[in-house]
Amino acid sequence: MTTWRENIRRVEPYVPGEQTKDTDVIKLNTNENPYGPSKRVKEFVDNPDMLRLYPELGASKLVNALAEYHGVKPTQVFVGVGSDDVLAMSFLTFFNSDKPILFPDITYSFYDVWAELFKIPYERPALDENFRLVKEDYYKENGGIVFPNPNAPTGIFEPLAQVEDIIKNNPASVVIVDEAYIDFGGETALPLIAQYDNLVVVRTFSKSRSMAGLRIGYAIGNEELIKALNDVKYSYNSYTMNRPSILLGIESIKDEEYFRSNIDKIVNTRKRFVEAIKPLGFTCLPSSANFVFATHNSIPAKEIFEAAKKAKIYVRYFDMPRINNYLRISIGTDEEMDTVVKFLKTYIK
Amino acid sequence: MTTWRENIRRVEPYVPGEQTKDTDVIKLNTNENPYGPSKRVKEFVDNPDMLRLYPELGASKLVNALAEYHGVKPTQVFVGVGSDDVLAMSFLTFFNSDKPILFPDITYSFYDVWAELFKIPYERPALDENFRLVKEDYYKENGGIVFPNPNAPTGIFEPLAQVEDIIKNNPASVVIVDEAYIDFGGETALPLIAQYDNLVVVRTFSKSRSMAGLRIGYAIGNEELIKALNDVKYSYNSYTMNRPSILLGIESIKDEEYFRSNIDKIVNTRKRFVEAIKPLGFTCLPSSANFVFATHNSIPAKEIFEAAKKAKIYVRYFDMPRINNYLRISIGTDEEMDTVVKFLKTYIK
Repeated sequence: MTTWRENIRRVEPYVPGEQTKDTDVIKLNTNENPYGPSKRVKEFVDNPDMLRLYPELGASKLVNALAEYHGVKPTQVFVGVGSDDVLAMSFLTFFNSDKPILFPDITYSFYDVWAELFKIPYERPALDENFRLVKEDYYKENGGIVFPNPNAPTGIFEPLAQVEDIIKNNPASVVIVDEAYIDFGGETALPLIAQYDNLVVVRTFSKSRSMAGLRIGYAIGNEELIKALNDVKYSYNSYTMNRPSILLGIESIKDEEYFRSNIDKIVNTRKRFVEAIKPLGFTCLPSSANFVFATHNSIPAKEIFEAAKKAKIYVRYFDMPRINNYLRISIGTDEEMDTVVKFLKTYIK
Repeated sequence: MTTWRENIRRVEPYVPGEQTKDTDVIKLNTNENPYGPSKRVKEFVDNPDMLRLYPELGASKLVNALAEYHGVKPTQVFVGVGSDDVLAMSFLTFFNSDKPILFPDITYSFYDVWAELFKIPYERPALDENFRLVKEDYYKENGGIVFPNPNAPTGIFEPLAQVEDIIKNNPASVVIVDEAYIDFGGETALPLIAQYDNLVVVRTFSKSRSMAGLRIGYAIGNEELIKALNDVKYSYNSYTMNRPSILLGIESIKDEEYFRSNIDKIVNTRKRFVEAIKPLGFTCLPSSANFVFATHNSIPAKEIFEAAKKAKIYVRYFDMPRINNYLRISIGTDEEMDTVVKFLKTYIK
């Protein structure tokens, strides 16, 4: 007899980064921001209507705030439940041809998961020996292009001219530039949107805006692309952004001064940290993100990863070709990084 | 020259119920709860870690609270961004055959939207002349079954024996019982989960728990089905439940007394309202939900709908075959419903 078992979708589950329940660890493994969000984030649960009513459709107030902030029209902005939601919806909407989409061999680990889920064919051109994008690899027939800039987990930023060449050479494809880490260095592709109608730029509140716990991401592109994205989204779930996210997201956008000072602190700490571990035998790729990608000249990355974990310092290790001798270390506070340096000094000696 | 336009997915956008920006209206058009959520919902944004860190994976604390509340294992509970997210993920996961899925001709208006989006074939057996489900219509080959109980927008509850017959006669299909309104009347299918491994029950916090603004829904079923659902979800977006939703959802579950008294109030107001409009020429279908589905013996529903809107009373009208002479009126507070009755008395005279 047949059962329902034959009729359900089977997916190889994605394995996300480790989240510990211990609260006494130095947690530098998921690129969270060590500082809290803007103090403008206020009490709001006293108002019962805040919770009992459906959020406004399309999170319009947050969309308007983002449009004003970036100097685009509200019809050019799409918001979602973290940039993962925005990217997944973008894959589903924009990568609907039979041709393979292109993304680098070393990149954000969710791209191939979405391609598999939505049955989108894909190819992964290799980064060069310095982990740089080879733009010519993207000058062939394809069903779409996506890459992060700065790239993850390398932290390397590709100059805007390089990004523009890829967009310009692919008028028949949507090109998604995933700028999750752009606020920590590098130059945004946003101004190119006025010039190229095939460009979508994706951002998140989880890193530079210290709001990983709220799940807010957004995309900016031309009105036609954003409309297609919204049409797919409304066919899926009309109300994904909850009221706390909309309200607190707007407050974050309003507090530019806090935002800038928060970023400055992290960029300074990153510089200090890279300088501090260099004498210990570490080489860091040039980082434009809130993490560094570091390798040691004699001790295997995996060993350091495991020793650090025992010392309650969580960093990220990828057991994958080409990068399995690197550690991705998120930038915490100066105090946290001092503890990491102290640990490394003792451990390596 | 080809452009990206040929390669993107085009979807007929779903048109959701009207959300007004006016705050001085009586809003009875989207089945929200007129009372706020439990007072246990506390201040939490003072703690910066609440917002800066990623939520725990799989919203495990909320899952555990729900499992304990319903007397099932945590591995039998799946949570999502409102029951729309849970249902959409369930369609994607469980309705993966080439056979048509079955749901009533008059039912929740998102079912056919998801079927279209995911390219799932479907058939819509007609409810009988009293808007009751004809169980024999579901005793044929199919790729899955879904229906709300109580049904929307009729409010009619089908006895559990009827539901069980459908589940029992379909061992080769997953049967989803969408219990968005079950707390306002009727008997839950949850106990049948121990007996039938093809049953999934879906619930929401948006109605009886007054938390539409937070977007929390969940599914309960056997461990194998819930695992398949989680595998698909993790391939899509690992962190969809934000920290406020998890925390405030748990607080709601803990406050059973408030939950019960809130429901009692709405059920009493519903009874009062039905009695009050009967002498005015209205007939209401027997409602087990937080709304009534009402028709008038002489005035077309559409005219009443428009007149009410002018009087700043928002109710829902569906311009669809068989139900285009009905109004769906959410149950507000006694005071709000008194205002509605007063308006109807004046208008109908």
